[in-house]
Formats: sequence, structure tokens, C-alpha cells
Amino acid sequence: MSTPDAQLLALTIGDPAGIGPELVAECWRACREDQTAPALVVVGSSETLKAAAQTRGFALPCRSLESVAEARDVWPDALPVLELGSPEFAPGEPSAEGAEFALRSLETATRLALDNEIAGVVTAPIAKDNLAAAGFRFAGQTEFFAGACDIAEEDAVMMLAGPRLRTVPMTVHCALADVPRRLSVETIVRRSVIVAEAFQTDFGIERPRLAVAGLNPHAGENGRFGAEEIEIIVPAIAALKERGIDVSGPHPGDALFTPRARETYDVAIAMYHDQALIPLKALDFDEGVNVTLGLPIVRTSPDHGTAFSIAGKNLADPGAMLAAVRMASQIAAIRQAQ
Amino acid sequence: MSTPDAQLLALTIGDPAGIGPELVAECWRACREDQTAPALVVVGSSETLKAAAQTRGFALPCRSLESVAEARDVWPDALPVLELGSPEFAPGEPSAEGAEFALRSLETATRLALDNEIAGVVTAPIAKDNLAAAGFRFAGQTEFFAGACDIAEEDAVMMLAGPRLRTVPMTVHCALADVPRRLSVETIVRRSVIVAEAFQTDFGIERPRLAVAGLNPHAGENGRFGAEEIEIIVPAIAALKERGIDVSGPHPGDALFTPRARETYDVAIAMYHDQALIPLKALDFDEGVNVTLGLPIVRTSPDHGTAFSIAGKNLADPGAMLAAVRMASQIAAIRQAQ
Repeated sequence: MSTPDAQLLALTIGDPAGIGPELVAECWRACREDQTAPALVVVGSSETLKAAAQTRGFALPCRSLESVAEARDVWPDALPVLELGSPEFAPGEPSAEGAEFALRSLETATRLALDNEIAGVVTAPIAKDNLAAAGFRFAGQTEFFAGACDIAEEDAVMMLAGPRLRTVPMTVHCALADVPRRLSVETIVRRSVIVAEAFQTDFGIERPRLAVAGLNPHAGENGRFGAEEIEIIVPAIAALKERGIDVSGPHPGDALFTPRARETYDVAIAMYHDQALIPLKALDFDEGVNVTLGLPIVRTSPDHGTAFSIAGKNLADPGAMLAAVRMASQIAAIRQAQ
Repeated sequence: MSTPDAQLLALTIGDPAGIGPELVAECWRACREDQTAPALVVVGSSETLKAAAQTRGFALPCRSLESVAEARDVWPDALPVLELGSPEFAPGEPSAEGAEFALRSLETATRLALDNEIAGVVTAPIAKDNLAAAGFRFAGQTEFFAGACDIAEEDAVMMLAGPRLRTVPMTVHCALADVPRRLSVETIVRRSVIVAEAFQTDFGIERPRLAVAGLNPHAGENGRFGAEEIEIIVPAIAALKERGIDVSGPHPGDALFTPRARETYDVAIAMYHDQALIPLKALDFDEGVNVTLGLPIVRTSPDHGTAFSIAGKNLADPGAMLAAVRMASQIAAIRQAQ
């Protein structure tokens, strides 16, 4: 097996009716002009990408590849594309064909990473409902990558990262009423250990500082508003300390994301989806990256959806997609240096 | 009954061992120098205030009043104080005596507002646990004001307001596990109507735009993650629209507080404590004001606690207390103009 090119990333195209194709096109523009940026190869369709660039007001040169090995040579002149066909698509109008195309783009890019042909995968947004109809049996792309890498779903840990905040929710896509019963000492410890290890291997932080949120208002006020802190979160923190991890908490959720508090940790461990996502999107909306920790391969994505309503209108901000490309590139470089 | 002086506010001293006294002292400095600021009368102790000012490095002239009517004449020269005695206190060391003093300050200031002797009350932070020992039977100051004004507790509605966000949680101090069963169509409608009316009477916004959050991740994704949106929140929004209120939602919690989303509404209706408090404190920590909507009197406070750990150390930021003073003054002026 070859050593992957540390600075060649594969981009998926996402749902072709969403903003994915135009974000990918913008990544080419931004990375071409930046000597420090990685080279990219898109798994998708030149035709779709060119049409998307057109909606942004520029002409995108694409080159169809026979194999990924040609990407480096092509890069200075054009965006290298591994062609999967040309889906019928109209911006803002998702279709079964488009979803099926998005799924093949995702599967092919992941295969390239597993085969060490590229250094990481940056995935554009998909629409889960439409993908499900195309046979996608996962709750989201994070769970897909767990399956592709043959690890347990709970060991593929979603982190949201922006310039002002990095945070990991312990539970993700479940009703709020189910959160208390889904939390356990074991889950918090297991996932937090993966987070701490990933900060060493992927971000080069030897002794990351974890700050754990409470579940209840004011972190329960000693059991006055809920017992989960006493029964679950405090014992989990104690177990993490026993493993030598630098961890504090449980902190009241509303105290954990203030400007001063954010200076005191590297990553906030949140108990549920919105506890992590609300501050991330309030603070870092246009630069939020979703990165999967705990995988053998590098995978990031922008922390936003397909945005069908603005697709093809030259309104989508490519900031988060570009931030996802930069983060994947940095993680790949740090991993290769080890 | 006299007409209250529209620009005379009463300040409570809060727990004397907390940062309250120094924040009150700083309010005198800031308001004295600002011709547009209201006059203040403190219900507490000159001795405590002078000592607090000393810790901030300045001498505070105080004048003990016989009655509130003298406050206006005193104001240009000194901080008017209605004396309640001189509690023994040390910054950072809360005591039963201090809590009892804080309670009397709160009760006296509220009485002045109910008697129309002042235009509004700005309350410094208290410590609820200590107050409970002193006979305080309320969950917090908001509930105290409901009782003092003889209205139902659920009709005194806590709003958190900063320069970037105004938000009202529908449930407040309860375990997260209890939130789903505490939500009802009736509660959301009743409290949201109070919010909409208060925006007219207190903020002069004739047709306020309310944006309602979902409870579950992605606002439940059509029942995929919880049924509360379908069963409770959507019907509540429909009922509010029937009353002619400009209301939208349910919005996914994490989408509601992005910079762009915040431009589209006047107030966000959140479902639980941290859903409202996390974005408020992440965005507006040093300027967050807690204002009680639905009261016959004007009441605001800074949206932070007693901060015993930094009391007396010249570290407390008076920004939120000053913002609370300014907001009370503005609300009083708008109410008087009606």
C-alpha cells in the first residue's frame, strides 16, 4: 500500500441539488491561490461542478482523471475530478437520482482514504431523508464513516470546531426526553478518552484540557434540579482523572461558553446536541467544522446542511467548507509527522 | 398616590458578601457622569457601599435619606441611601446576617415601586440558598416579584436581554428530564402573549416578531426525534398566530441563534433554561440583563450571580449591572409616555 500524499484531499460533492457543488468550486478558487493549501480531487461530476461555478460567476476548469495518481499533476491547471457520471440536477430541487449520486461520491471518496490514496476526506452536505430512500442506512455521515472503518458507531465521535470553540456532544440525534437515559458513566468516559487521544494525534496537543458540562440548569445545584450530575457526570469525570486526563466540571451549561470560560479549555464536552451546537453556531456559524474523531482516516465537513433554498443563487458562504478543507489538511500533516 | 419620578430608580444591594455593593458603587460613578442616565437611590447601607467603593479604589460620597422624596436633591452631590442598618460582612464570606439584609433590601425596594415612589427596581445578585435560610420561600427573585405584585408565578416572565439577543425560556429551574412534561400549549401561549404585550408596553415595539425554538435536535425532524414539536409547539404557534401575533417556528435550536437568524426576530422563545442562557451568555455575557416581563412595576437585574469568589477584589465587571440600570430607565420612560 502506498503512502498517501499528505496534501491531497478528496472532496465529495454532496447532494448535487444543494450548495455542495458551488462550495467545492469555491474551494478550488481559494486553494489554487494559496500556496499553503492542499491539493484537491473531487469525486463527482465535472459537468455539475462547472454549472455550479457558473452560478457563482466564474469558469471552472476541470480535468477528468483515470486514477487519483494523476491529481497532483493536474492540480496547477485544473480541478481534478474522478467522474461518477453526470446526474440530472437542478439547484434547490433534490431528486432520488441526486441522492444516489451523493451516496456514490461519499462511498468512493471513503474508499480512496481507506486505500491510502488520499490524506483525508472532506464531505459536502447531504440530505439524510433523500439518502435513506437511496439505501443509506445510517443516522448521518459520522455513522457511515464508523461503518466504513469497521468501528463501533459510538467510537466515531463528532466534534464541532470553530475559531472560538471546539465541542463534542455525548448524545446526538435523539429526542431531548431520551438524553438522560442515554447518558452513562461508560459512554462519557469512552467517548471522552477518544477525544483526549484525538487531540494528541490529530491536533498535536499533548495534554488537552477537557471541560465537561452538566446536564441540568446550574449543573443541577447539588441535586436540586436533577441527579444526573451526581450519579453519572461526576463519577465519569473522576474516572477520566484516574486515567490522567486533564478534565474539569461539571460546569453549568450556560457558564461553559462565556468568553472567559472558553479560554480555560481545549474542548467542551456537552451532554446533548443543542448544548454543543447552539454556542458553536451562535459564535462560529460561517466557519464551523464537523470533524470525526476516533477514525483511522481523516474526515471533516462543514457544519451546515444542503441549504436547498439558496442553492444556485450565489448566496452560500464557502467559509465553513474552506475551514473543513484546512482542518483536514492540518490533521493529515500532524498525523504524518508522527 | 404620587406619580413616580420617571428617572429615579431604586437599587438593591444584593448579598453584601457578593459583588453587589461594588457594582452599585460603580453605577453611581457611571450615572453621575452621564447626563442621560437616571438618578439612583440605594436601599441598603452607606457603610457597606463605602467599603465596597474603597476596594475599587475610589471614595464614594453617600447621603442617608429620611425619605425617598429627598433623593433627587441629594443626587448631584452624593449617592442617596435608604439605610437598613450596617450588616457585619466580609467580601466572599456569605453569612446568615448578610442574606437577611439582602432580603430586607429587596422587600423595601419593591415596596417603594409598588407605592409609586420610584420608577423601577434594579436588583443586585443574591444567593438563593442563603436567602432560603432567612425565610425566602421563592425559587428566585422573579418569583418573589410575582408574589409581591400579587400575580401568578407563571405570569412573571423572565427575559434575558443583551445587545445581540433577547430570549425567554418557557421553563426555567427544573431538571432537563422534567422539561418535556412541563411544556404545554397553554403555558407557551400564555407566556408568549405576555412577552408580545410587554414588547409593546415596555419596549415600544408595536408588532414584535417572536421566533419559537423547537425542543428537540433539528426541531424533531417531523417527529423523528421527539413529538413535542408536533403535539405542543406547533399548536401553540398556531394559537398565537390566531391572536394576531407575529410568530415563526418551531426553529431548530441551533439554527435560531446564528447571526443571520438573530436579525429576523425581536425575541427568541426558548423551551428550557440552557437553550436561552447558553447563547445569551456566549454572546453577551458582560452585558446580559434579566428583566421581568408582565409585572405592574419595572424590574431588571444583571444576568449573573453573587460571584463570591471575586468579591472585594476589584475584578467584577459592572457592565451588566449598568445595562440593567439603563434598561430599567428606558422601560420606565416608555411606560410613562403611554
